[in-house]
Amino acid sequence: MTRLFNDPATFTEDMLAGFLDANSTYVVGVPGGVVRASETPAGKVAVVVGGGSGHYPAFCGVVGRGFADGAVVGNIFTSPSAQEAASVARAAHGDAGVLLITGNYAGDVMNFGLAVQQLRNEGIDARYLPVTDDIASASPEESAKRRGIAGDFTVFRCASAIAEEGADLDTVEQVAAKANAATRTLGVAFDGCTMPGADRPLFTVADGTMDLGLGIHGEPGVSSHQMPTAAELAELLVSGVLTEKPSGATDRIAVILNGLGRTKYEELFVVWKTVAERLAASGHTVVQPEVGELVTSLDMAGCSLTVMWLDDELERLWTSPADTPAYRKGAVTAVTDARRADVADQATAARVAEADEASQASGALVAQGISAIAAQMVKAESDLGRIDAVAGDGDHGRGMVKGTSAAAAAAAAASAGHAGTAGVLTAAGEAWAAKAGGTSGVLWGAALSAAAGRLGDRGKPSDRDVAEALRAGHDALATLGGARKGDKTMLDALGPFVESFENEVNAGTDWRTAWLASVDVAQKAAAETAELRPRVGRARPLAERSVGTPDAGAISLAMCIHIVADLIEEKK
Amino acid sequence: MTRLFNDPATFTEDMLAGFLDANSTYVVGVPGGVVRASETPAGKVAVVVGGGSGHYPAFCGVVGRGFADGAVVGNIFTSPSAQEAASVARAAHGDAGVLLITGNYAGDVMNFGLAVQQLRNEGIDARYLPVTDDIASASPEESAKRRGIAGDFTVFRCASAIAEEGADLDTVEQVAAKANAATRTLGVAFDGCTMPGADRPLFTVADGTMDLGLGIHGEPGVSSHQMPTAAELAELLVSGVLTEKPSGATDRIAVILNGLGRTKYEELFVVWKTVAERLAASGHTVVQPEVGELVTSLDMAGCSLTVMWLDDELERLWTSPADTPAYRKGAVTAVTDARRADVADQATAARVAEADEASQASGALVAQGISAIAAQMVKAESDLGRIDAVAGDGDHGRGMVKGTSAAAAAAAAASAGHAGTAGVLTAAGEAWAAKAGGTSGVLWGAALSAAAGRLGDRGKPSDRDVAEALRAGHDALATLGGARKGDKTMLDALGPFVESFENEVNAGTDWRTAWLASVDVAQKAAAETAELRPRVGRARPLAERSVGTPDAGAISLAMCIHIVADLIEEKK
Repeated sequence: MTRLFNDPATFTEDMLAGFLDANSTYVVGVPGGVVRASETPAGKVAVVVGGGSGHYPAFCGVVGRGFADGAVVGNIFTSPSAQEAASVARAAHGDAGVLLITGNYAGDVMNFGLAVQQLRNEGIDARYLPVTDDIASASPEESAKRRGIAGDFTVFRCASAIAEEGADLDTVEQVAAKANAATRTLGVAFDGCTMPGADRPLFTVADGTMDLGLGIHGEPGVSSHQMPTAAELAELLVSGVLTEKPSGATDRIAVILNGLGRTKYEELFVVWKTVAERLAASGHTVVQPEVGELVTSLDMAGCSLTVMWLDDELERLWTSPADTPAYRKGAVTAVTDARRADVADQATAARVAEADEASQASGALVAQGISAIAAQMVKAESDLGRIDAVAGDGDHGRGMVKGTSAAAAAAAAASAGHAGTAGVLTAAGEAWAAKAGGTSGVLWGAALSAAAGRLGDRGKPSDRDVAEALRAGHDALATLGGARKGDKTMLDALGPFVESFENEVNAGTDWRTAWLASVDVAQKAAAETAELRPRVGRARPLAERSVGTPDAGAISLAMCIHIVADLIEEKK
Repeated sequence: MTRLFNDPATFTEDMLAGFLDANSTYVVGVPGGVVRASETPAGKVAVVVGGGSGHYPAFCGVVGRGFADGAVVGNIFTSPSAQEAASVARAAHGDAGVLLITGNYAGDVMNFGLAVQQLRNEGIDARYLPVTDDIASASPEESAKRRGIAGDFTVFRCASAIAEEGADLDTVEQVAAKANAATRTLGVAFDGCTMPGADRPLFTVADGTMDLGLGIHGEPGVSSHQMPTAAELAELLVSGVLTEKPSGATDRIAVILNGLGRTKYEELFVVWKTVAERLAASGHTVVQPEVGELVTSLDMAGCSLTVMWLDDELERLWTSPADTPAYRKGAVTAVTDARRADVADQATAARVAEADEASQASGALVAQGISAIAAQMVKAESDLGRIDAVAGDGDHGRGMVKGTSAAAAAAAAASAGHAGTAGVLTAAGEAWAAKAGGTSGVLWGAALSAAAGRLGDRGKPSDRDVAEALRAGHDALATLGGARKGDKTMLDALGPFVESFENEVNAGTDWRTAWLASVDVAQKAAAETAELRPRVGRARPLAERSVGTPDAGAISLAMCIHIVADLIEEKK
């Protein structure tokens, strides 16, 4: 378990502060993460990696010469926000474009995808690649749905090394895609890890067994096995990965035997003995293997085997020098790049449009509602995390607390600055998306912003305005998330609620009464997500495992609707 | 717990095979451990580090340029034998002498001390230094009794770096001593680790508490505390270490915040944040700190803070380049040294003196006895380990199994080769000392060899011969171990047994009857060691903690005496 922390809510910030102090010759902090201490030289493509934290050395530990130019650092096991990704990419960018790479997780894909759009709007040539090496997470036919685990390392490494050689952005992107296509990982877990401050592990594995294909955030595996010997495990991993040898691949391979945190070096070497024998017996030549901790999951017990099939180019890149806080290899030329000037805080003040008095009054009520939601989320955090851990990575409670508290603070500030309904909602949405991280934060942010657009900053919203704002929020969320009805997402609670609300308003009911009348609809729909099977955004095995447990996002949405209803009752 | 292994009895060998394969550009295996893959150049002092395994990267992970020339690799938490230490030192030695360094543990001090004598007899200028950085293990007045923990790393590093610069052996030894005198460590543990194949942890720490000063093999700490926050822990460690600032020290310091295996990087960085603040506030300048896993204890939960106060020389050495499997820093000059030729297996066949028929028959009986002992030790292993874990490092059962099984095999081979009493006992003693590792192996080896010298290879030993052989064994053990009656060692069981045996024989009893009559004396004496307090070879806190538990070495000795008695009964 994770034992050492101060306030669990500031764990990532505290971790980052310590990391930056200990590695000040390599890295400096910027909003959202870290970049190299030296300026990105003219003509050099920047490679920015990232994702949630808790995986050290991934991701901030590999920022440095021959490796990444920057790392976006989310909360533990939680995607950073699009704002954070864009902020780090902006700081790392020189003048030759930037490639962003993460593992293939719904939250990362969404946030880094949005960041790329934002960067392009600013005139920065930005690209994005999600790594899909985990062969246990989807079938070969659906390899694009696979998660990224320790294979992140080989892909990051090759893309970064060719960028260091001076290749242009197209080439860096192609090499990253080639490395990803050549990389396969199979992992096992023996026991779970505990998030800072949590009172129980994120997940457990039954004593004396191991779970094949279990994800690095505890996502369920594909099968459970009796605990094998080291040699049996080596056989299982080698034969599993070699089954997926890409057609036309050579017999030269880069290999990583990666420990997840509690499976230690001595054990890994015992396993490696047989891995090396089996790989040699299968006719492969192993090039500079890595046996150690490269992509961890706090103190999770388990390990994974990654193979990247090499061509001449990938072999040159894999064996090239690197000099970073946590990964060093060969002799890196002495650093002559200019040391980075102090990085200005790029946070911008929330824009507040002029609002009339009626709208300011509505805005104050909105701020009050968001504040009530934030207070309730603190109490609901661990329950939401537990529900989310069944099918996901258990970060939903944390994300809702971070998102709603940031939103409440931003809304209060906007309201104090005389913002109207739209101004308050926009400030809240932006803060929520920026601070929550993960998938839900950016979706809530988009929904609030869309609703704000419909409500405006003039006058008191009519019943129909509120109905249209809800619909606009719903549609923005559906469009951005790409989910459909029945996909087991928050949309499955929001859709029936908005429909019911519209029906009531259309029948002449005022919006407050319509809201009260629709609360039960939302709660029932949220509970009923327990019986749904997810279609997109998650690897297939999860569908089976999550049946019987509702979707955490739907549940928290229904809670928010209920909290607003309580406020309406109070004010009656 | 340690989950991945094949046969727990071959864990270290399997680990070493995997380590050597994965790091073949850096290291090659030799009997007893590893040396650099390149030859030690003419004029360069060799630095050989070592101790038990289970501490990776210590010790084999730091063999390479700018660091150690060789590492002696014992079993998990068990000292290598003197033969192993000498073997690695011989292979690492160029022509300029060799410095051996270990942490200050009784087994290491004895075995490496013997190795140094042996090397000197062969004409190799060899020196030995035990590291004593653990301030919790003895008072400042008795600093020479302190254990070596993560401070091993700073001392190894500085000694190795000056050797790499081309300094002579006197200088290398002086620098090692200076680095040791300037280094202080304070550690804490939150939970124990489990040896491969063991059915329970080596030790435990009560839930929600931490043990201050707990050793890296689970040696008891000095005080128990409620689990602190990361910041509180940082305060405790910094203030504890700074209390011991050497007089006249500068304010420039090398610092290591070391994780023991399950306390992960993110947690260490959170602690480091406050450590860095406190060190700065105390007026210190931290030079290139290390925050990570450098000296581990399998998957033990805990961490330690090491400070080495720097002068110009130590700072130059601490910041110099290194290129090893597990620790790399700066740019090391391209390797041009000759690659080492295949290292010949230096194991020598047991010497077998010519023996007459009567002595051959006695030798066969001796071999049978040792075989019976070896079989029983397998059954007693976990009990002995548990007893030993109360006051020591829990390795006694494993050591007895490895030692007696090697001794039984060697004795059987010698007997099959027509060796007599002395030949069989000598072969058994040498194998025991070579393979058991730890403290007890070398003592048993010395005792058997001394007894062999008295019995010879001619004729059937008389009753008086046996009595004199036992006394010779007793004296050899007492001389080598340096223990006295009442020090809570195996001597406290052997002494009363030999005395009783001598009295019986002096009274005219035959040796078999004398043995049977003395078994109870040995067992009673072994049990009574529970009430003794150890005087030497262990840090003081252990004395209190071990009261009430007998000495594991005394217990296993009494068991061996009992097994021989059973055989005598059978043959009657």
